[in-house]
Amino acid sequence: MAGEPTEVVLLSFWSSPFAMRARIALAEKGVPHEIREENLGDKSDLLLSMNPVHKTVPVLIHNGKPVCESALIVQYIDEVWTQEPPLLPSDPYERHRARFWVDFVDTKMFSVMRSGWFVKGVPGEGAKEELMETFKLLETELGEKAYFGGERLGYLDVSFFPYYLWFHQLDKTVETGLEGEIEAKLPKLEGWMKRCTLRESVSEILPDPDKLSDYIRQIRKKIIDAQA
Amino acid sequence: MAGEPTEVVLLSFWSSPFAMRARIALAEKGVPHEIREENLGDKSDLLLSMNPVHKTVPVLIHNGKPVCESALIVQYIDEVWTQEPPLLPSDPYERHRARFWVDFVDTKMFSVMRSGWFVKGVPGEGAKEELMETFKLLETELGEKAYFGGERLGYLDVSFFPYYLWFHQLDKTVETGLEGEIEAKLPKLEGWMKRCTLRESVSEILPDPDKLSDYIRQIRKKIIDAQA
Repeated sequence: MAGEPTEVVLLSFWSSPFAMRARIALAEKGVPHEIREENLGDKSDLLLSMNPVHKTVPVLIHNGKPVCESALIVQYIDEVWTQEPPLLPSDPYERHRARFWVDFVDTKMFSVMRSGWFVKGVPGEGAKEELMETFKLLETELGEKAYFGGERLGYLDVSFFPYYLWFHQLDKTVETGLEGEIEAKLPKLEGWMKRCTLRESVSEILPDPDKLSDYIRQIRKKIIDAQA
Repeated sequence: MAGEPTEVVLLSFWSSPFAMRARIALAEKGVPHEIREENLGDKSDLLLSMNPVHKTVPVLIHNGKPVCESALIVQYIDEVWTQEPPLLPSDPYERHRARFWVDFVDTKMFSVMRSGWFVKGVPGEGAKEELMETFKLLETELGEKAYFGGERLGYLDVSFFPYYLWFHQLDKTVETGLEGEIEAKLPKLEGWMKRCTLRESVSEILPDPDKLSDYIRQIRKKIIDAQA
């Protein structure tokens, strides 16, 4: 196959929870691909030309054509590489539910985390309560299942796990102690997280915790400084 | 069929651009359904129990089960009622593009309109420019096609049209004159809008312009008062 162009390229960044989604999905499906690490402080011309609207990672380049936005990338991967395991359920109603919760994670959780943890000082009680409620809703959706996708990793698992991982590391960095509370109050979600990390598709892309903490510290400082 | 429960119920509100999406999609597919108009100031127990997370319209109740979030409702309708016309393309890449632009409309356009037109005074030049750029990107995506979906109304048409209609009425209400500029500078988008309004699925759900203007005036005042 030497000399042939790579069919699947992922423009990525090691700590991005959105890039992690695409990487887990590609690994679950066993799609051969090339990862190109971006420098977010000096984005490549390829990234800017492939994602001129948002200019963000990840971008999946499939046969030269860009696929953007992480949740949509995961859906695309599932629809193009139809081999096992399916990431979205085949039943339209169950598929809707998975999309509903991914949308919830993307709209609700990000804003709560940002307004609570990326501000000066420690998060207020209101922010902590709101995040706990958000997690509780997701734990209820998980129920007694091994994964949100049932017996195997699905669309919501792939989409939520990187956020949850980030949150754990973020909370350690900001030292609010919420992580401990989560462990005590949301045991099913914690069990789910451990099961996810045991999967090869996930363990392979886990960043070094100390490196991630350093990165979170830097990015948090940058955001807080910009607010001042 | 008397005495049988209605299979498809839409919890709706006449002026909601999100409810319009669901109504156009149901009409395009010819799905028999019952519309239940909500009072948003005093939401029904049915709405609160069917959409406890967001508590918003529209909610499509299909055989007693709730389907929430307008863009996801349109996808669900297309996947359950597979008769003609398809709303999403069958080709995975084209399907991705449609999803990408609907996501763009939902994230970008709403925030630009809100920050520019739902504030005291008239929109600043920056907001007007940003909205024009947003519309231009969509016009480029439309290109020479009759509809975003090609020869027929598709997912992006169904999702973008109600926003665009709202914007026209909103701009008339705020009297910024941007509507005239759009007509001059974005002729393809204007032609597209006219083609959409000629379709029965769309013309049937068009609200009375004066009534919509009154409603926009009220809701705008409410939002601005809450900012003060």
